[in-house]
This record gives sequence, structure tokens and C-alpha cells, in this order.
Amino acid sequence: MQRNVRLGTLTGVGPTIRRLSDDRGIPRDTSARAAIERLSSDIVSFRRRHRLDQVVVIHTASSEPPFPLSATHQSWNKLDKALPRRGTGVLPASSIYALAAIESDSGYVNFTPSLGVHAPAIEERARQRRVPYMGCDGKTGETLVKSVLAPMFAMRHLNVLSWVGQNILGNRDGEVLSDPKTRASKIKTKDRIVARIVGGAPTTRVSIDYVPSLDDWKVAWDFVHFEGFLETKMSMQFTWAGCDSILAAPLVIDLARFTALSHQRGAIGSMPQLAFFFKDPMHCGTHDLPGQWAALVAWSKIAKADA
Amino acid sequence: MQRNVRLGTLTGVGPTIRRLSDDRGIPRDTSARAAIERLSSDIVSFRRRHRLDQVVVIHTASSEPPFPLSATHQSWNKLDKALPRRGTGVLPASSIYALAAIESDSGYVNFTPSLGVHAPAIEERARQRRVPYMGCDGKTGETLVKSVLAPMFAMRHLNVLSWVGQNILGNRDGEVLSDPKTRASKIKTKDRIVARIVGGAPTTRVSIDYVPSLDDWKVAWDFVHFEGFLETKMSMQFTWAGCDSILAAPLVIDLARFTALSHQRGAIGSMPQLAFFFKDPMHCGTHDLPGQWAALVAWSKIAKADA
Amino acid sequence: MQRNVRLGTLTGVGPTIRRLSDDRGIPRDTSARAAIERLSSDIVSFRRRHRLDQVVVIHTASSEPPFPLSATHQSWNKLDKALPRRGTGVLPASSIYALAAIESDSGYVNFTPSLGVHAPAIEERARQRRVPYMGCDGKTGETLVKSVLAPMFAMRHLNVLSWVGQNILGNRDGEVLSDPKTRASKIKTKDRIVARIVGGAPTTRVSIDYVPSLDDWKVAWDFVHFEGFLETKMSMQFTWAGCDSILAAPLVIDLARFTALSHQRGAIGSMPQLAFFFKDPMHCGTHDLPGQWAALVAWSKIAKADA
Amino acid sequence: MQRNVRLGTLTGVGPTIRRLSDDRGIPRDTSARAAIERLSSDIVSFRRRHRLDQVVVIHTASSEPPFPLSATHQSWNKLDKALPRRGTGVLPASSIYALAAIESDSGYVNFTPSLGVHAPAIEERARQRRVPYMGCDGKTGETLVKSVLAPMFAMRHLNVLSWVGQNILGNRDGEVLSDPKTRASKIKTKDRIVARIVGGAPTTRVSIDYVPSLDDWKVAWDFVHFEGFLETKMSMQFTWAGCDSILAAPLVIDLARFTALSHQRGAIGSMPQLAFFFKDPMHCGTHDLPGQWAALVAWSKIAKADA
Repeated sequence: MQRNVRLGTLTGVGPTIRRLSDDRGIPRDTSARAAIERLSSDIVSFRRRHRLDQVVVIHTASSEPPFPLSATHQSWNKLDKALPRRGTGVLPASSIYALAAIESDSGYVNFTPSLGVHAPAIEERARQRRVPYMGCDGKTGETLVKSVLAPMFAMRHLNVLSWVGQNILGNRDGEVLSDPKTRASKIKTKDRIVARIVGGAPTTRVSIDYVPSLDDWKVAWDFVHFEGFLETKMSMQFTWAGCDSILAAPLVIDLARFTALSHQRGAIGSMPQLAFFFKDPMHCGTHDLPGQWAALVAWSKIAKADA
Repeated sequence: MQRNVRLGTLTGVGPTIRRLSDDRGIPRDTSARAAIERLSSDIVSFRRRHRLDQVVVIHTASSEPPFPLSATHQSWNKLDKALPRRGTGVLPASSIYALAAIESDSGYVNFTPSLGVHAPAIEERARQRRVPYMGCDGKTGETLVKSVLAPMFAMRHLNVLSWVGQNILGNRDGEVLSDPKTRASKIKTKDRIVARIVGGAPTTRVSIDYVPSLDDWKVAWDFVHFEGFLETKMSMQFTWAGCDSILAAPLVIDLARFTALSHQRGAIGSMPQLAFFFKDPMHCGTHDLPGQWAALVAWSKIAKADA
Repeated sequence: MQRNVRLGTLTGVGPTIRRLSDDRGIPRDTSARAAIERLSSDIVSFRRRHRLDQVVVIHTASSEPPFPLSATHQSWNKLDKALPRRGTGVLPASSIYALAAIESDSGYVNFTPSLGVHAPAIEERARQRRVPYMGCDGKTGETLVKSVLAPMFAMRHLNVLSWVGQNILGNRDGEVLSDPKTRASKIKTKDRIVARIVGGAPTTRVSIDYVPSLDDWKVAWDFVHFEGFLETKMSMQFTWAGCDSILAAPLVIDLARFTALSHQRGAIGSMPQLAFFFKDPMHCGTHDLPGQWAALVAWSKIAKADA
Repeated sequence: MQRNVRLGTLTGVGPTIRRLSDDRGIPRDTSARAAIERLSSDIVSFRRRHRLDQVVVIHTASSEPPFPLSATHQSWNKLDKALPRRGTGVLPASSIYALAAIESDSGYVNFTPSLGVHAPAIEERARQRRVPYMGCDGKTGETLVKSVLAPMFAMRHLNVLSWVGQNILGNRDGEVLSDPKTRASKIKTKDRIVARIVGGAPTTRVSIDYVPSLDDWKVAWDFVHFEGFLETKMSMQFTWAGCDSILAAPLVIDLARFTALSHQRGAIGSMPQLAFFFKDPMHCGTHDLPGQWAALVAWSKIAKADA
């Protein structure tokens, strides 16, 4: 296992990750283009060395700060010309990995809230290379619970007034998120789900705090304030105490299998059938878990019938 | 409104309700048959007086202790012969009301965990009289939440080891449930849902305690112990603080409308499309809320298209 | 360590413990007297073999059902005459152990809600033998929290209306408490503390359920309903997730030390300075933790000054 | 009642309060000195009009942002010279009210986390004028609970690793605290208490969010991560749901009485006997509630004996 590990890139990771990474030995790529070529070549070598038909790239690196898109990111033509530029401002690291996957003809999954494939230019390139992809941000804990509770309030016409969530966690993920800029990416994917499901304009708040003593555990407390018949205000609260890596691992394995299968079946572009796994599924209207589950099951049956 | 209220029966209510009821003026029916005839006649008079096409009877009386069925309750022929017997042992009050509804050609809904229509003989009679019915036990709070959370654990293959619920409430319902015999009925409909959804043999416990200071509020605490990847144990807990009558009222109104519509459309016997509203839906395989919701929506669309 | 372990007695343990104990090899004592003599002699041998000045006996066996006292238990004279009787009805096992401690001149601590030394006849005998003792029931978790929160409500004149506690645990202690008779002892020591501290007549409930998946963990949920200015009702709830043996172990060590020191200083009878450690401290008026702590600290200072 | 209300000052209130205040009619004081003289004269008129012996001023206005002290605030001599300056930068409004109280010979209590009397120059002036004072920040809810739970962990040598608190509230206080600058003052008094009581270097976090649907209710969730024997990590969490004004009102009344009594008894300067009421009691070493209670009771007994 250890022999297959290759070094990533520090291009476009931002100051927090750079500070945390053990700097020694990580190659200094001169441009985004150079980084993409090096990483893509690592993937191809891996595929050949193990005589594999397919590789799936799953991005599980630390969250990056939000990356503002410009005109450069609107078409592959423009982005392609900018990639050889010196310096690190063209693309965040997550998008460099996404392009390394695409250029090596590998299916790609973004398990984080970082940008990854989520720019028109990169999606265009993925379609050109006939590669399937999906994201963003694995739905492992608090947001998973939101995605079943929020539809319950909606189905019963209980009007959600406010939904406040406090997350505390102690692992490297938590350490990276203690940087307010990085946290902003994560809060965005965690926070928007409730309003999308229940509609209206509920007050929603999501906080994330780094609490080292928790190690790999995440504790989340959510408070839901809602209104029933005759404008009576009621409340529900839950506390989730989960082990993040343990919750993520089987999803990553499932995503590898489903992406490989989709790729074999000729899927190109985003894979809405995998919305079930994500906090903020790309190009998907369905945010409630049961609807996402039904879509995944339906797709699996078709795939199985074809096999 | 007040002028339309008629007195019920004390036949078959059990000692707790008898003690709580203000005894003065409630007619002493000499047999189950006599009570059914009196109540049925009250319903018919109400329908005529208000020139109604239909009446729907919704049972929301206090919970009764579990009522053991015997050979007498297996066919209408046998039960019909037993009804004129003196004394109160033939049927619980909830079933007397169910038969009063059936004999007056009214649709019937059991919003409680009491027996109601739920005996082969009574269901047979309802089909003879071409009357639709449904139950048991309105799903307003803690069990509602269970019916969306339990499928989440199942969809994610998170193995539910234990699910413990503690309910405290302060209204008349709570006072009646402080009798351990009555509580047994309620605990049965509240407890079985988790194992039915997640499968396996989780440890499940449901407690109910009467806490007068809460008035019409119900507070429920649920603790879920579950196992993920590599047998890692994790937990989730929630506290629900709801106002029971406020949560029940709109469901009762919806049930009246849906039952009336079903009756008009010629429905006879149990109405599985209304499973969404019940803790323990009669003759239904689906216990998860999203599945029940999908069934209700599908049925409504057909009914609307026909209209 | 293992070489110092001696077998206990099955006399007076009740059916649950008897069923759980691996029966093979446990001596069948013919009477309470015989059991006391055998166990007392084991303690004396232990003291001599290790050339010890003192031994402290700390009772941490499984909880027993409540044991009703009769005239026999009101004076040592009467009890002493009853001890040689055949059969197991004279004393529960915990009291046999207490008398074994007393007869071997050992200080005695009851870390459980079982009877132990808590009968006039046994206390009389302890004073005759000039032995100090204390109990009942180590205060490790939920009740510990109650003993600081209840005084807070009292100090602020916030009127406690109701206090409901639900305890779930998975170890042998939990298994024994799944017997309702045994549970009754435990609930008594856990439940009375609130009313004793806050006064008035709050509704208090304590439930205990055996949930095997929790292993040695105990989870307790407490809900406090209270009333402030202008009769406004408010609430507080807490969840305690503790590892019972880990919480008990240091208390047992402290109790051994404090009891040994008290014995050396010539203490006879109950030791109110150790109330800090117990759910239901014998012969003590103070139930709030800070008051108990102040008493322990004051006593320790005197003991230290004398040394 | 309404006839006794006089307008306050906008001098030194900061932009959030200024925006929220209905600006019309509030006098524009030309300097801190002018505001102090106007307000002090209002207090004196009130005392004369009602023929009172004493007035106690209790500051319950909205929280201000932290105010940095400079050399000017270190002695009354220097501050006195700066007061006539034009503009609003010399003192925050809370300190203007404190000086108005002092100059009118009134006892003063700061029920908020704002600066108030808490500057060497102002305290010096209070002692010159022989006026008693106390603060800061009334301890009504979450911090009250902390002040009894934290000592419990300390008494039992359970090592507090982390203590995280999330507060949500919906009233004007919450609206003002939604300004991050104002929030900083409040978080300081709420956060420091745990480390002061348990010692060591626990990770502590306090968040405050404005959730309008809660109206005057405050909900606080606290998570305590602690370590017992053999470095076993355990946790406790609580949710407090209280009505802030209802909790504060009786404390304000008690503070008025105790301050009046202290003043009568010739108290000058800070009143440590009133630490019981404050999150961050001035010049006090004792932060645990039981210790503060004992001090208040002891003082009351002396005062009563003297009367």
C-alpha cells in the first residue's frame, strides 16, 4: 500500500495547508500545468503498473478556502491558456487534482467542499475527455440527519422558523477548519440544505469549532424551532456523536465502485444518481435523502439489468 | 358546536377511565348491543339534522388497556350473537364506537392505540357495510421522528444496536397512561416501528411517564446506539418538545377529508394510502415516512385526476 | 492479586444474582452465622498473611432487592440469636458481608444501595466492636450532577416542578438492575435526593434500563422543569455519558484511605465526613455536594493537623 | 411609573445601539461631563420628588463593545480633566451612567458586561464619594449552570479537557450581540469562568447567535469533555431553555435591596458579598456558586445581627 503513495502538490493549497504540510520533499511545481502533468502521469503509471482497466480519483484532501471564479474559468479554451502561467493563483489544488484525473481518463469524485471539478471550464474538459464526475462534500453526519429531518417538517407542513447547528471536531479536518476562510467553504455546503428542502426563509446558522480533545470524533448539536397549528412554536434538538473517518470510509468505497461502473457504462459529466452521498450534489434538484436513495436504487436496478 | 356533543359510553372503558369520568348523566347501557345502537342512532340524527351526505367518525378517546381477542372476535356471526350479553366484557369501548360508526355507514379512523376496528369480526362487518376504515394511533411526535431517522440508518447500513425512548407528558392522555395496563397498549405501537424498519434485533425500550407540570406538552428523549465500519459504536440522541393537541389537530382534519373522499370513491375496508398518519398502520408493510408520503401523494393524484 | 481472591456467599443474594453466578465451587453456608464466620476468617487470614495493621472492607457487589426489616433487626441481641437459623431469610448477602467486616474488626463501606450495615442491630454491633462504617451507594454520575444542580435551583429560588431521569447502562450492574425488584433499591437512593435538597413536592421519576450494547458505559438523561418569576415555566436537560467503573474506582480508593484514617483516629459508627461519596449518606442531613465537600475538607484539615 | 422615565445618552454608545435607538428627542450632550451632569441631576430630582433616603442605580442597558483603557482612565485627576472634551471618545455610555450614579451619591450595580465603573479612575472617584458598587454581568442562565458544574468536576478531580457553549437568543439583547464587536464583551465574561474554576488549560469556546424566532427565550447548549481514571474520556452536555428577563428580574430586585443595605451600613467601593449574582464579579477570587452563596449568607447574617 505504502509503496503506491505519491506526493501531491502545494500549488494553490492556501496558507493553512502549507503551514501544516511537512514541506520537505514535496515538489515545487512551476505552474498549474506542470503540477497537472506530474500528477496525471503518476496516475497513469499506477494504472499500468497494476494492469488496471480503470482508476477512480476520489478527492479527500483538507478543505480549501472558497476560490472566486473569473472569466478564465468559464471555458476550457481560456483556462488551458492560463495553466502554464508561473505562480499559484490560476487554480486551487483541488482543481489541479481534478484535471490530473481528467487528463488521465479517470472518473473523479470530490468528497470535500473545495472547488475540484466545479468550474465551467473544467466540466467542459471532463466532457471532452468523456470522463464522469461528481461532488461536492461527503454527507456523513449532521447534514445526513438534516437531509431526513427537514423533509419530515416539510411533509407535515410544520413551518421551520430557525435551524441552528454547532459542530465540534478534533482531527486534522477540524484543525484546517479553525481557519475562518477555510470554514467558509464548509459552512456553505452544510447550511444551504435546510432552506432548499423546507423553502421559505428560515434563520439558519452553522458553526464549526476545533476541539482537539475530540480526536477523530465529531459532535454536532442542532436546534430546530418550528411552528405548528395556530402558530404554536415547538422545538426539536439532536446531538450526533460520530467518528468521521469511520463514517466516510464505506461511502468512499461505494463511490469508487459506482463511479467505475458509471464510467464503464459510458457515463460522461456529472452523475446525479450519486446525489445520495453528497451535502451539495452538483446539478441536482433533490436534497432529501429518501428521494436521493430512490434515484440511486432505480439507477442500480437498470445497471444490474443491463449487466 | 356544544349543542352537537352527545354522551359516550362507559361500557368497556376499564377502571382508569371510569374513575376519571364525571359519572353523572352518562347512560348505563345494558349491553354492547345497546350502546352501539344508541351511539349509532346519535350519528344518524346528527347527519340528518345537518343534511349531510357523509359523516366520518374519528376516535380520539383516551387509550385503553390491551384487549385480548377470543374466538368470539374471529367472525361477525359469532360476535353478533355475543353483543346482546349483559355486562361489559364483550368489547372495549373503542370497538363499540367503531361498530356505531359502521352501523351508521360512516367512515372510521382510529387515532389511538386502542382496539377499535382491529378485530377480524369487526373488519368483516365493515366490509359487509361497505365502510372504509384506518388506524392505529396518530403519529404526531417521537414516533414521527423515528419513522424518518430509522430509514436513514438502514439506507446507510449503519447497524442500529439499541434505541431507547423516554416520553413525558402532562395532559389527560398522560394521566390515563400513568396506569401501567393502559401504557402497555401505547408502548406497543411506539416500540415496534424501529425493528420493523431497520430489521435485525435491536434492543428497543419505550417509557412513558406522567409529569403534570408539562400540561399539554410532551417531551421525548431518544437515544440511538449504532455501529459503523469496523464495528465502531457511535450514538445519536434527540429531544422533541411538542404540543400534542396542536400536532394532532391538523392530522385529524386531514384524515376526515381523506376518509370522506375515499368513502365517496367507493373504498371499502382498510385504507393503506393513509399509513402516513399512523404509528402502526393497519395491514401495511411500509413504516418509513417517505415511503408512506409517496403512497399518499400517488393516491391523491389519482383521486384528483378522477375528480 | 488473583491469589488473594476468596469466594463469597450465595446466602441471601436473591434469585437474579444466584442465576448469574457461576455456581460451581461456591460454598453452601448452612446459616448466616456460618457464612459470617467463614468470610470473617478469610479477612483475618488476609490481614495476617500480609502483616497488615488494618483492613477496610468495601462492598461493591451487585445491588440486591430491598430487604424488609423486622423486629429481629432492631437489636443485636435479637439478631444474634437468629443468625444460626438454617436457610437464607435472616439477612441479605450484603449484611452478611457487613457483619464479616465487623467481626474481623475492619472498617466497612457500602458502595451499593443494598442493606449492608443499615439496620439498627448491625449498627449496634459495629459500635460494640468499635468499627467505623459508611454508605450507601457511591455517587458516580447522574446523582452526582443532581447534587450540584438541585442546590443551584434552591439558591436561586427557582421552583423545581418536576425532575425526570432516564438511565441506561450495559454492564453486569445493568443486567442485575433489569430485575424490577433489584431496580427498586437503586431507584430509591437515586430518586430521593432532589426532593430532599429543593424541598416542596416536585414530581420526580427515575428509570433504569439495561441496554447491553453500552457495555460499561452509562448514559443518563435528566429533564428538569422549573418555575421562575411570574410563574414562568422553563426547563433544563442534561445527558451524562460516563464509564461507571472508571468513575467508581478512584472513589473506592479514596474511601479505603479515609476509612483507614478514621479507624486509626478511633472513629466508631457512621462517618458523616464521607457523605461526599454517597447517593444516600447514612445519618446525614446534607445532600448538596458543596456542603459535603466543605465537611470533608474541614475534617481532613483537622486530621492532618493532628498527624 | 412611566412618568419617572428620563431619557439616557447617546454619547459613547457605539454604532449598533445608535442605529437601534429611536433618535428623536434624545438630547445631544456636548461632552461626557455634560451627560454626567444631566443624568446625575435627573437622579437627584427623582430622589427629592419621592422624598427618598437613597437611590440605587442598576445598569441593564444593551452590551457595549469592549472599550480600551488608556492612561487617562488610570486616575480620577486625569479623567476629570478629560471629561469636558467635545466628542464621544472619552468614556463609553455605561461609564457615563456609572459616574452619574456616583456624583448623585447613589449605589451602583453593573448588570451587563460593559465597562461601567470598572476603570481605576472611576473606582477612585466612587471611593472619594463613599459610594458602593458591584458588577459585572448578571449570571442568569448558562453561566449560572457553569458555576455549579465546573466546581463539581474540580472536586472530583475529573480533568476538564474542553467546554464548548452555544447560545441562541431572540430578544433585543440578541440583536445587539449579533454585532461581533459587542459580542466580544459578552463572550469574555461568559468564557473565562470555567478555566478560573477548574484550572489547567481547557479548550473553551462560547458562541452567541441571534435567532429572532426565540423572542425573549435563550437556549444554550454546553458540551463538556472530561477525563477520568486511566485517561478515559467521557462527556456531559446540557441544554438550558430559559426566559432571560424573567430570570433577571428577581436578581435586579435583590441587588437593589442588598446594595441599599450595604450603602446604609457604610460600605464603600466594591461589594464582594454580591459575587453570587455576577458572571465576572469585580475583585473577587471566588467563581463557584456555592462559595459565593456561603459568602452572601454569612454577610446577611452579620447585617441582620447588627440591625
